[in-house]
Amino acid sequence: MTTAASTTLVALLHGPDRPGLVARVAGWIFERGGNILHADQHRDMEAGVFFQRVEWVPAGEDASTEARAFLEFSTSLGMSARVASSEHRARVAIFVSKFDHCFHDLVLRWKAGEYACDIALVLSNHPDLMPVAVNYGLPFELVPVTAATKQAAEAQHLTLLKRERIDLVILARYMQVLSGEFLERFGRPVINIHHSFLPAFAGGRPYQQAHARGVKLIGATAHYATAVLDDGPIIQQDVARVTHRHSVEDLVRKGRDLEKLVLAQAVRWHLENRVLVYGKKTVVFD
Amino acid sequence: MTTAASTTLVALLHGPDRPGLVARVAGWIFERGGNILHADQHRDMEAGVFFQRVEWVPAGEDASTEARAFLEFSTSLGMSARVASSEHRARVAIFVSKFDHCFHDLVLRWKAGEYACDIALVLSNHPDLMPVAVNYGLPFELVPVTAATKQAAEAQHLTLLKRERIDLVILARYMQVLSGEFLERFGRPVINIHHSFLPAFAGGRPYQQAHARGVKLIGATAHYATAVLDDGPIIQQDVARVTHRHSVEDLVRKGRDLEKLVLAQAVRWHLENRVLVYGKKTVVFD
Amino acid sequence: MTTAASTTLVALLHGPDRPGLVARVAGWIFERGGNILHADQHRDMEAGVFFQRVEWVPAGEDASTEARAFLEFSTSLGMSARVASSEHRARVAIFVSKFDHCFHDLVLRWKAGEYACDIALVLSNHPDLMPVAVNYGLPFELVPVTAATKQAAEAQHLTLLKRERIDLVILARYMQVLSGEFLERFGRPVINIHHSFLPAFAGGRPYQQAHARGVKLIGATAHYATAVLDDGPIIQQDVARVTHRHSVEDLVRKGRDLEKLVLAQAVRWHLENRVLVYGKKTVVFD
Amino acid sequence: MTTAASTTLVALLHGPDRPGLVARVAGWIFERGGNILHADQHRDMEAGVFFQRVEWVPAGEDASTEARAFLEFSTSLGMSARVASSEHRARVAIFVSKFDHCFHDLVLRWKAGEYACDIALVLSNHPDLMPVAVNYGLPFELVPVTAATKQAAEAQHLTLLKRERIDLVILARYMQVLSGEFLERFGRPVINIHHSFLPAFAGGRPYQQAHARGVKLIGATAHYATAVLDDGPIIQQDVARVTHRHSVEDLVRKGRDLEKLVLAQAVRWHLENRVLVYGKKTVVFD
Repeated sequence: MTTAASTTLVALLHGPDRPGLVARVAGWIFERGGNILHADQHRDMEAGVFFQRVEWVPAGEDASTEARAFLEFSTSLGMSARVASSEHRARVAIFVSKFDHCFHDLVLRWKAGEYACDIALVLSNHPDLMPVAVNYGLPFELVPVTAATKQAAEAQHLTLLKRERIDLVILARYMQVLSGEFLERFGRPVINIHHSFLPAFAGGRPYQQAHARGVKLIGATAHYATAVLDDGPIIQQDVARVTHRHSVEDLVRKGRDLEKLVLAQAVRWHLENRVLVYGKKTVVFD
Repeated sequence: MTTAASTTLVALLHGPDRPGLVARVAGWIFERGGNILHADQHRDMEAGVFFQRVEWVPAGEDASTEARAFLEFSTSLGMSARVASSEHRARVAIFVSKFDHCFHDLVLRWKAGEYACDIALVLSNHPDLMPVAVNYGLPFELVPVTAATKQAAEAQHLTLLKRERIDLVILARYMQVLSGEFLERFGRPVINIHHSFLPAFAGGRPYQQAHARGVKLIGATAHYATAVLDDGPIIQQDVARVTHRHSVEDLVRKGRDLEKLVLAQAVRWHLENRVLVYGKKTVVFD
Repeated sequence: MTTAASTTLVALLHGPDRPGLVARVAGWIFERGGNILHADQHRDMEAGVFFQRVEWVPAGEDASTEARAFLEFSTSLGMSARVASSEHRARVAIFVSKFDHCFHDLVLRWKAGEYACDIALVLSNHPDLMPVAVNYGLPFELVPVTAATKQAAEAQHLTLLKRERIDLVILARYMQVLSGEFLERFGRPVINIHHSFLPAFAGGRPYQQAHARGVKLIGATAHYATAVLDDGPIIQQDVARVTHRHSVEDLVRKGRDLEKLVLAQAVRWHLENRVLVYGKKTVVFD
Repeated sequence: MTTAASTTLVALLHGPDRPGLVARVAGWIFERGGNILHADQHRDMEAGVFFQRVEWVPAGEDASTEARAFLEFSTSLGMSARVASSEHRARVAIFVSKFDHCFHDLVLRWKAGEYACDIALVLSNHPDLMPVAVNYGLPFELVPVTAATKQAAEAQHLTLLKRERIDLVILARYMQVLSGEFLERFGRPVINIHHSFLPAFAGGRPYQQAHARGVKLIGATAHYATAVLDDGPIIQQDVARVTHRHSVEDLVRKGRDLEKLVLAQAVRWHLENRVLVYGKKTVVFD
């Protein structure tokens, strides 16, 4: 099989709904000799918005030209679009602090071949996980953060992310809040895992809050980070049952499993270009 | 089997923890010829509180005397206790408005023998479900409620509940908020079903709130009603997965199934004397 | 809105995969002035089979002509297809015996507007549920079945199903096995609910089997009935957690909730033309 | 706090049910100055068997004497019992082959402090995971197995297990079947993870079997290994939802997460002395 044959493109597009969009997109690809592997549509009937994820094998040898052509075509339909090529492996940075469970989980999945990406950088405000990262053969950068140095630290983050051409940041229980200014200047997606079923128990110490309230289920939420804390578009959530027998420590332990699974799933969907953000919500084409 | 033999008592007790409580309770029952069927303990290590549910067949023929003796005994241990006898079937009132799914579900379970209680009263602020209640052979009382008549309506509720010697009120999607004064004067448990995963989306229109926030799971919560809306001790919760494909109407439909299951389970636990309230939380001995 | 405008067609098609199928189907509908509301595709890569569900509003006033034209078109693509029009409400027969929980559940959902169908017939081998059916305003037919009379009973079933022009039979805990001959002569789908997680515990008394094996989850399975008992294509399955504390009676009670939910979901998907059978499996476009 | 004070004993006992067992056990502990932390009972009403898990802080300094005294006492009650002391850390051997997900998961949980045990041995029939084990600082033994050498290999296993005084063997996707003779001679518990919802899909290639049957849920089952393959007492099971979109490879990937969680939970319960085997079933005091 030639390289050209195995390259696939994935487009995520959305815009005002109107008749014929499915036919026109499929027709455009077909006429240029492409072969659609998957196509998924969604209509938000109330808002009148059309969403589509389409994955295809383009004809010809130059996938990036085809991607650009598709973007022009989708603009002509009045749609916003993003096109990803399987030729480009996403470059990922993982931010960590001291908790290591999500970090181990992500790296082991990556080593098991679950994620088509490069982990180009591990960044932390603490030195604790340096040996672990090094042991996995991953580059580790220590950027301590205090209230006084936060602005400087974020500038250093941006430099590192730019240097490594990072496409995606994963906050794997990174215990610092990123400023809205940082998020804007980075300009690319940042996935966070919050250890509660948002919007319940936003903010700090959610397991303690859940224990105090006596809930019967605890949760975890993976979402894109935005300037407002714990308020970004939700990608994935899950819950686990708890009882009065569980102490806060038990909730923390059970929560670790939830956090790992929920973050891992959100990262998979993102890397497979299955997540389309609009407004405060996501459309996940799973 | 004689009546005496088949009568069982269930005690729910709690109080300051100290060594020997399990032995003393079991010893007390054993010495008086009782036979323990189930005994479940819990310790809140942080608060230093001991909780127990114990179910036994008392010797002798007079279960109510035995129940009173147990209450005295538990007081001597410094414990608060409640003792229920299988000789007393709980008398239940179901409050409804227009939604009928929880009402049908509870009544059909009751007819199928799932609940050891008498449904002594169906009370509504709307006439819509009268024919349904009558068809099930249940007494129906209409008490319309407006902002102006609320106080008078609650007085009428209390009269009816007293007349029927009601032990438990179930709010089966009853669309009026009960005042703190009513709850205090009634002085017995009131179970409510809230159509969200509390504490997320308390208050009105929770499915609309959930849809707007883009959550990936919707929930339902059964709790004891207290003076603060949607803030009482949680008995049971569950969730169901939703996606961007689901409209508010779909959430409402999926939510109906959740509400039925969660309320039915909470009512079962309550009627089986498995729920112990302390502070804002419950201990459920399931 | 005119009748023509609100009529929708749903096509389920499958056949050998080849490039351009998505484009050709969408193009065909678009060229004839139709508007695609939903389109979902699936490829079985190993088997090389293409599956599609497409829902659209046809132009023009005659939806049945359009449906026939689509069938011709899909044949020209080498595809098998089925087209359902929203103008035709499915006519459903529910078979029951003595258990009433699934029956109540289906009828109450139907009355709540969850199912776009007519319940044209309730058929039973026992008289027990006759008053319930009559009370719901549903026609009830009693056809007793013994080993000796089974063949004659099935002939009578076929006569009734034909007389009522039944499109779908739902076995709502109907306790007789339908013969392969009956299924073939009826020639339309029959949905059964089996009270276990198939293929575990096929055949009789599955809750007893599950209890004896000491499983930690019990299940229910809705499937299309075929000549081989409990072996037909699975539409939906779900499970519930059980422990050593649960007796067989508890499993039966918990199982009732599972059976209701699983059968209700399978019937909904079927009536919405979301289920495509191929081989021993189903593709469910949910 | 002195060592003696923090030592706890856990007894698991079962035998013919009779009145007063709860009181006599609690009384025995209380009279000797012990303090019961947890006590959980279960009665199998049909079989007339009583089960109990009781955890207490014994008075005095010699917990092992107290444990022996309890065993004598329980024998006098006609009960079988096992007593574990928190002074003895279980010594565990993990058997692996080539799959590493359960192995990583167990070791990382152990390092995170979830398991009170020593991992004294990693044993494999393949050299693949040797560097991983060594990297974790764990002793690794390679014992190749072929049909011809199986008997000799199992003799070598027994020698190693005896040398390391192993209390528990965990088969973490170990791909060899252990003989009944081996299990009998080892004489201690062996926990296996089977990658299906047993009893469905016992034996080899369960994900392929599940895919071929078109099930809508896949499962994993942790059970004690017995001489009959995949037939031992079940400790824990769980399932995950799958659809027609999932290939066998997807089932394998999703199954890995199930296998990890189910095995981890079974091992935790076992190490906390919460699992009581009787007949082909388990009582899990969670």
